[in-house]
Amino acid sequence: MHHASEILLTLFIVFVAAQIGGEIAQRLKLPGVVGEIAAGCVIGPSLLGWITPEQTATGTPLDVLAEIGVVLLLFSVGLETRLEDLKKVGKIAFLVGILGVLVPFAMGGLWAHGSGFDWDRSLFVAAAFVATSAGITARVLQELGALQRIESKVILGAAVIDDILAMLLLGVVVSLQGGGGFDLTHLLVVLGGAIGFIAVIGWGGARAMRWNSTWLDKPLSPHSPLMIVLALCLGLAYLSTLFGLAAIIGAFLAGMIASETRQQHTLEQQTMPLLALLTPFFFVITGSKIDLHELANAEALWMLLVVTLIAIVSKLIGGWLGSLSLGRRSATIVGFGMVPRGEVGVVIASLGLTAGVFTHRIYAIIVAMSLLTAMVTPPVLAWLLKRQSSPQDTADILPPSPEA
Amino acid sequence: MHHASEILLTLFIVFVAAQIGGEIAQRLKLPGVVGEIAAGCVIGPSLLGWITPEQTATGTPLDVLAEIGVVLLLFSVGLETRLEDLKKVGKIAFLVGILGVLVPFAMGGLWAHGSGFDWDRSLFVAAAFVATSAGITARVLQELGALQRIESKVILGAAVIDDILAMLLLGVVVSLQGGGGFDLTHLLVVLGGAIGFIAVIGWGGARAMRWNSTWLDKPLSPHSPLMIVLALCLGLAYLSTLFGLAAIIGAFLAGMIASETRQQHTLEQQTMPLLALLTPFFFVITGSKIDLHELANAEALWMLLVVTLIAIVSKLIGGWLGSLSLGRRSATIVGFGMVPRGEVGVVIASLGLTAGVFTHRIYAIIVAMSLLTAMVTPPVLAWLLKRQSSPQDTADILPPSPEA
Repeated sequence: MHHASEILLTLFIVFVAAQIGGEIAQRLKLPGVVGEIAAGCVIGPSLLGWITPEQTATGTPLDVLAEIGVVLLLFSVGLETRLEDLKKVGKIAFLVGILGVLVPFAMGGLWAHGSGFDWDRSLFVAAAFVATSAGITARVLQELGALQRIESKVILGAAVIDDILAMLLLGVVVSLQGGGGFDLTHLLVVLGGAIGFIAVIGWGGARAMRWNSTWLDKPLSPHSPLMIVLALCLGLAYLSTLFGLAAIIGAFLAGMIASETRQQHTLEQQTMPLLALLTPFFFVITGSKIDLHELANAEALWMLLVVTLIAIVSKLIGGWLGSLSLGRRSATIVGFGMVPRGEVGVVIASLGLTAGVFTHRIYAIIVAMSLLTAMVTPPVLAWLLKRQSSPQDTADILPPSPEA
Repeated sequence: MHHASEILLTLFIVFVAAQIGGEIAQRLKLPGVVGEIAAGCVIGPSLLGWITPEQTATGTPLDVLAEIGVVLLLFSVGLETRLEDLKKVGKIAFLVGILGVLVPFAMGGLWAHGSGFDWDRSLFVAAAFVATSAGITARVLQELGALQRIESKVILGAAVIDDILAMLLLGVVVSLQGGGGFDLTHLLVVLGGAIGFIAVIGWGGARAMRWNSTWLDKPLSPHSPLMIVLALCLGLAYLSTLFGLAAIIGAFLAGMIASETRQQHTLEQQTMPLLALLTPFFFVITGSKIDLHELANAEALWMLLVVTLIAIVSKLIGGWLGSLSLGRRSATIVGFGMVPRGEVGVVIASLGLTAGVFTHRIYAIIVAMSLLTAMVTPPVLAWLLKRQSSPQDTADILPPSPEA
């Protein structure tokens, strides 16, 4: 009974902090998500200490709620994304994904080697510069109602490609630490598996749903279509982790499949309260992982500034170059959309700490960099999108797909 | 990453099992909740062993999801309950609450003493016969669309009174185990606190909301009224545990307060997907706690049968006597509505096991009894309610309250 009471208090604190943070941010004309992350930093161990998330392990109730929150978020983003639309931007997204991984990896590795790491360790540090956190960008695009824009489609498509590449890079880097070189055949198998999974599930699922979705109404449960797609969401989120991908990729695919059903509009409405309850946990927990103590000296702050600048600039260059065919303004939006690292950077930093490759300070700096990129991006992105949505640019907004 | 993947699989299994169980139950014309509890028993440690909830502690992610699920369930029940309606049935609910505690306590105590327990321990066993689990009944009433019936109001009102009395009884019984007698003044203070909490929050909150609820729309968040009432729900659920009450009492009060707002209808619709996602966790986890191994012999089964019969009959008599002024048929509905013990019986049994008062077998039997009452009730209640809703009885259905 006592423990149950404690966890209710924690849930209450996290939830209310998110609301207050989000409200303040919106009053300051910033995206709500910035306020939620900041609220997490305030109530986390660094300042008030009201919540104490595990730094490395996932599995505490708060972490699980955060995980469900971000899974549902990407599901709902998928629900607003038609496969057809993604296909239209396929080539550009592919370029953005590739360049958005290579440029940060190269620049991050060079910086690490320049700071005194040997090459093997430098590559590990470089891997932490790579993976885009689709969650943050998706939330901002959703908040601004910009998910139907062409830049958003490019960003989402590129985020999927980005995740595949990041997974591969991490595999290479981790195996290099073992000292035994790496197994190219194994990597190719992993790559094939991941691409196959996405292709089969995304393409096959979407086609199947477009062909027939009346069976979703067959069960007697009053919540029927929702229950089935939520089960699909949890199932694909799990499956995608088996293929070495982030759970959110599977959730995004599930949403994209569900967007082909004729119940899509109802599903979108019903997903909204789920997001309202659960996504704040993800952003508050993310914010609470910023360890201000490790950063409380001039040298660490300077290093953080450099690392964050490299992280932002390198991703911006990669994304910008990849999407230049959309025009400079759109390319800037895409570039900034790819900047947030969020939880993926945190996960890589945790791996580095556990493997003994990173010191506590490097760990803290990489975590802080991941989260700073997540906090800096939303206001910039919001500003860019608002500036962009002048009348002469409306051609950038894709026409809605015809009903299947 | 690995742990996150594991928990996603568990979530998927629990969620899908609940859907399948619920669907089968509904095809058999049983309430869906029966199927969800049975599904929990099947995938739990007794049979398939796919999920392994802690028997005594709460605090694992699954337990927390279950807790949030039942809290939201009672919140949504509160959302369909007007304070005015509860007031109309106040006296009957009070009688039902008192008799529904005293009769099972007396019969349970006599049985335990007759089975060879000394009086102090018998009182502890007796306490496990007492507390009604409002969750199960509420779900059945909600599934059948019967929450507006007068019997439902009586049951919900009585469940609140029941919870106060059960808390007091448990206090007395636990202090008796210490051997030092009990402190009447302390108990009166606890009683006063609990009643004061319910009265102030329920009455004051409802009045405040009826007076003015436009401020709920003030925040900029697009989910605004929902966010505020969810925060209220979590906050009151926590507060009520501070007063020694079950968290669901606070959640019910929060729902009742929110039912007075002019956004009540929207809130009801928005709560539905939350229930769809989270309440299955509560019922599946509840079912998974049935330990079939401890019961796998004739003697234990016989004892379980006797204990369950006493539990059902004693609560039925108490509830029936208390609500006889509604007519015999309605009194039968109320009596059966009070039968499920569910998680409260499990909690008391856990306390008994930890305190060394119960053997593992008595523990298993009391847990199984609590859950059997929860499984037996829904079909009976569904049958009684359907039989009852013949035209000549429609006067039993309360007229909707006038808009404030």
